[in-house]
Amino acid sequence: MIGCDCEVCRSNDPRDQRLRCAAVARTQGATVLIDAPPDLRAQALRAGLRKIDAVLFTHAHTDHVMGFDDLRRFTDAEGNLPVYGDAHTLARLRQAFDYAFDPSCKYPGYLHAIPHIIAGPVTVGPLTFQPVPVPHGRFTTNGFLIHEAGCPKLAYLPDCSDVPPPAREVLRKVPVLVIDGLRERPHPSHLSVSQAVEVAADLGAEQTYLTHIAHDFLHARREPTLPPRVRLAYDGLCLTV
Amino acid sequence: MIGCDCEVCRSNDPRDQRLRCAAVARTQGATVLIDAPPDLRAQALRAGLRKIDAVLFTHAHTDHVMGFDDLRRFTDAEGNLPVYGDAHTLARLRQAFDYAFDPSCKYPGYLHAIPHIIAGPVTVGPLTFQPVPVPHGRFTTNGFLIHEAGCPKLAYLPDCSDVPPPAREVLRKVPVLVIDGLRERPHPSHLSVSQAVEVAADLGAEQTYLTHIAHDFLHARREPTLPPRVRLAYDGLCLTV
Repeated sequence: MIGCDCEVCRSNDPRDQRLRCAAVARTQGATVLIDAPPDLRAQALRAGLRKIDAVLFTHAHTDHVMGFDDLRRFTDAEGNLPVYGDAHTLARLRQAFDYAFDPSCKYPGYLHAIPHIIAGPVTVGPLTFQPVPVPHGRFTTNGFLIHEAGCPKLAYLPDCSDVPPPAREVLRKVPVLVIDGLRERPHPSHLSVSQAVEVAADLGAEQTYLTHIAHDFLHARREPTLPPRVRLAYDGLCLTV
Repeated sequence: MIGCDCEVCRSNDPRDQRLRCAAVARTQGATVLIDAPPDLRAQALRAGLRKIDAVLFTHAHTDHVMGFDDLRRFTDAEGNLPVYGDAHTLARLRQAFDYAFDPSCKYPGYLHAIPHIIAGPVTVGPLTFQPVPVPHGRFTTNGFLIHEAGCPKLAYLPDCSDVPPPAREVLRKVPVLVIDGLRERPHPSHLSVSQAVEVAADLGAEQTYLTHIAHDFLHARREPTLPPRVRLAYDGLCLTV
């Protein structure tokens, strides 16, 4: 964090150098980005990301959307890119990046977003993203349960302060759960590590990764203290499911 | 650039790894940031930037403003930070980051911008920033001629497609000129290298640095071919004037 001298912010372990959250779901015939953080350019370069078929947004907080303009490198030949989010998220994107939603503003190389309001599962090739609304403080975000060829594979819930019963029913026995585990102390808008661990246990997730981690703990020191089948995610982590 | 395999984008020379443009002017008693690109967090961490007294914006294009929210780390104890720009720039910032301009939206740790429309020289401690309006394609940006204790020291014009006569009068014999030199070929909104070199020669700048460089040329190969007293800027460059 800017201006912070804590041991995590000074750590040389790349797993402690945490950019803002995003994820890519990729299979034969479909590559889907979830969220466009301000760090998107650096993240895409590091991951060698060259093609995406669509972008899904969990919500519109700045740490998840301010790399939106860098999506221009992922459009089709006409500059188009499908963009999915709830109505509030799309409205916020349209407010901040109005030119990308204005058909009269189509310049070569510019992004032209094709907006889709998430009103149910989103299918991109063999992948289906089932929205899982969860509270994020006063707001609601969409987590996603990702299915491939009809099988639930992985749930991604990077910003949530609770996982209420209807979401738990949907996520029960999920093979891989990637979930908000911001820090040790409770936070009004995020799950703490112990809260996330409780959710993972209740769901019976086969494997859980905590994400959206702040700078409370060193990866190398904290991960061995977690329960079996719970690990810490880190930037660049690849999971095959 | 995302998805590009050119020799510049594959170069290991750190001078070829170009983030979006910003600059810091610092003297005893004043540190002023010019622009808040999406890369601001990474740039601030790399530079060890811990305190700024104000932010000046040249214009509101996304590559100069989308790191705005990261300014939250530079506010005073009340969350305030003075922000200077022309009326259009402030309106765009307010549109994209409305919460930062809403006095009813003051949360601990959040940015609360104190907007100031640039209507003449801006003074921050011993530094004065004289706005130098220049065309940037269809738009106008503010370059800045920076004075310290009344002496002109350095001009910063990262985005301009021309330097018209009134601006040339202001900038004549400037000790250090940092100016847009995007690429070899002409561009509708930016100076090419040869155009920037012409401006530098006409102004009689003692030393010139080209900035806002795309991925047309390798730093190590191109710089030696420039005229005397013209160099290429690079990320992290520090100038003492």
